[in-house]
Amino acid sequence: MTSVVVVGGGFGGLLAVRGLRGDEIEVTLVDRQNFHLFQPLAYQVATGALSAAEIAAPLRHVLRRQQNARVVLGAVSGFDLDAHEVQVTHLPNGDESVTLPYDALVVAGGSAYSYFGHDDWAQFAPELKSLEGALEMRGRILSAFEAAEVEADPAERDAWLTFAVVGGGPTGVEMAGQIAELGRDTLRKDYRAADPRATQVLLVEASERVLGSFPPSLSRRAEKSLRSLGVTPLLNTTVVGVEERAIEMRSAGGEISRVATRTVVWAAGVTASPLAKLLGEAAGAEIDRAGRVVVEPDLSLHGRPEVFAIGDMAAVRDQPLPGVAPVAMQQGRHVARSIRDGKNAPFHYRDKGNLATIGHARAIADIKGLHLSGFPAWVFWLLLHLVYLIGFQNRILVLTRWTFSYFTRGRGARIIHR
Amino acid sequence: MTSVVVVGGGFGGLLAVRGLRGDEIEVTLVDRQNFHLFQPLAYQVATGALSAAEIAAPLRHVLRRQQNARVVLGAVSGFDLDAHEVQVTHLPNGDESVTLPYDALVVAGGSAYSYFGHDDWAQFAPELKSLEGALEMRGRILSAFEAAEVEADPAERDAWLTFAVVGGGPTGVEMAGQIAELGRDTLRKDYRAADPRATQVLLVEASERVLGSFPPSLSRRAEKSLRSLGVTPLLNTTVVGVEERAIEMRSAGGEISRVATRTVVWAAGVTASPLAKLLGEAAGAEIDRAGRVVVEPDLSLHGRPEVFAIGDMAAVRDQPLPGVAPVAMQQGRHVARSIRDGKNAPFHYRDKGNLATIGHARAIADIKGLHLSGFPAWVFWLLLHLVYLIGFQNRILVLTRWTFSYFTRGRGARIIHR
Repeated sequence: MTSVVVVGGGFGGLLAVRGLRGDEIEVTLVDRQNFHLFQPLAYQVATGALSAAEIAAPLRHVLRRQQNARVVLGAVSGFDLDAHEVQVTHLPNGDESVTLPYDALVVAGGSAYSYFGHDDWAQFAPELKSLEGALEMRGRILSAFEAAEVEADPAERDAWLTFAVVGGGPTGVEMAGQIAELGRDTLRKDYRAADPRATQVLLVEASERVLGSFPPSLSRRAEKSLRSLGVTPLLNTTVVGVEERAIEMRSAGGEISRVATRTVVWAAGVTASPLAKLLGEAAGAEIDRAGRVVVEPDLSLHGRPEVFAIGDMAAVRDQPLPGVAPVAMQQGRHVARSIRDGKNAPFHYRDKGNLATIGHARAIADIKGLHLSGFPAWVFWLLLHLVYLIGFQNRILVLTRWTFSYFTRGRGARIIHR
Repeated sequence: MTSVVVVGGGFGGLLAVRGLRGDEIEVTLVDRQNFHLFQPLAYQVATGALSAAEIAAPLRHVLRRQQNARVVLGAVSGFDLDAHEVQVTHLPNGDESVTLPYDALVVAGGSAYSYFGHDDWAQFAPELKSLEGALEMRGRILSAFEAAEVEADPAERDAWLTFAVVGGGPTGVEMAGQIAELGRDTLRKDYRAADPRATQVLLVEASERVLGSFPPSLSRRAEKSLRSLGVTPLLNTTVVGVEERAIEMRSAGGEISRVATRTVVWAAGVTASPLAKLLGEAAGAEIDRAGRVVVEPDLSLHGRPEVFAIGDMAAVRDQPLPGVAPVAMQQGRHVARSIRDGKNAPFHYRDKGNLATIGHARAIADIKGLHLSGFPAWVFWLLLHLVYLIGFQNRILVLTRWTFSYFTRGRGARIIHR
């Protein structure tokens, strides 16, 4: 019997567990949360288009038929790689910790947004990687419209209706588009004093174009779509300060500008999970500038062929890969195969394409050189997300919500949690 | 132009606002939350059968087409009935307060559970009236199963798998049935170490039968259904203590028993919203033992024909009424008519029947003396709840979830929020 511990129930970890089906293997999946989050749609929870549970699948439910897999709720606090043991704390029964022995270990802790060393900005600009972050952001965005409604001072009202999204990657672009639509379409008839159509959305991007992982022509199309939705892309612009009532930016020319806003959305800079450092230190492995642990071409740690790191928290030596779900999924499947075969093989990423949605029925796609934009790209985006969303019930629920949103431009889950 | 202030967006308040459609009226709805909660299904959020947003409709969205209605988010802190003014605080823009003048005032603050003077029990036994309470309860119930899974000590594991539900009214019966089903059916295949089928559910009721508002024969049938689900009804039993690890009860004979449990659900004792006292003191009106403000047969306060109190926070003089949604809804419609007509009329409750669900495809109904139980009553219950649920989209989503639950006995929204 081979015993495998998988840390993290995201795309990479879950695919690794699923790939380890079989009689001769015992898998333990450790996660701090009891659900797999379909992170690419977290931004839709943040804008009230989807309810939290619709993009979250209980890990136990996902794995209920895989008899060789068990789930332990808890946080990993240490790796003893010589003893082949993982230390797990914060157990649900209040016990201090438990030690899980392993023959093979897969660590897939993911990543978080980084505030470029300004962690004090986080309180004014929460991130969108977690379900809690998304729900917090939803409360802030909707409360800003509520605040504008009762605000008598026009300048203050403008600040409440100004939203700054930091980071022009897929999440930033999607958030900016959705907030603009929220003001222009969804909330149009909801307010009496404030006019949500006066909503200003700034998309702040440090490089010269949004969606930098796409070909420049598609970036241009995305910028055009954003502008037509009412989003103002501020390119070559760096954030230098985030406060409760304002954001400060520096343009390419070095000019500093200050915009009054009460809502800043953070979708820039990525840093690996702290597990990368913990694992790297235990293994004596290199940590790169993004905080990722460097792994060999077979995704194992140097000198530890039985220890693997995958997904956003791992940097494959000499093979730069994007921090996207397909990479983590393919890596999860790959290490499962290596463990099952008892033989490590080098990992090769098969890039199937790149997709981003911008707003109502608009998206861009780059599929092996085939460039799509507008409605066809959006239909493709929609189908792909439904297929990869975990749980048949969630697919139906999300499709129902999207169908309503498509025809009514409404967003059904506009609930502010206290 | 008549200006009307309605406090509270529950069943009573929302129906009052909707009944006040018309050119010559200006309605302001004040609520602390931005949504109407379909409270009768909150227990299904608590057991992971539904997601929060599926039973919550944004108030602005519900009223978007009613041009004479506006919504103000905030808490009422005072009534000046001589000056015809309501004081609203906790505004979303951070302003200290705003004063709303009115020609007519409708207060519909609802109720909460009461802990019989033992407010310290609340920390161990959260209530189920609010969405937050339901989500908190969901986290506790699911975490108890998680804790049982990692618990090595059999006695401790039993305590984690023992659930005590206090109160044998509709909510208590529904919760007890759902928790039993969660252990018996939903989670059966989810755990490896603990056996969720070992789940013990105690339903503690002080009177001699559950569902006391129904005819005794239906109560007996409900008790039988509960037993067959694995629930143990403890009748004539009073709770005398709730602690972190145990519940203490006294039987009719005066015997004290103590049961080790880590999860207590509170669904007993009702107390009116604090707004009842605030309003009663401002009007010099009587407050009854349940904390409700006593209103005249036309639902207005004595000597204040332009001030109405409705729903769970009001006691109609010489007309005892149950604390259920249909009463609040009929009262909301009634006061709207009185205000529109400029003439108060006495309120008469039309009792259309009484319904409670027990578990999978089981319910009881008492419709004007017609007694139904089992599957037909459950279908009736299901259709009625779908019809009264606000928002067409929510109806489809809830129906989808229920269809899945019916066939798979699963519960899709089993997410523990941190």
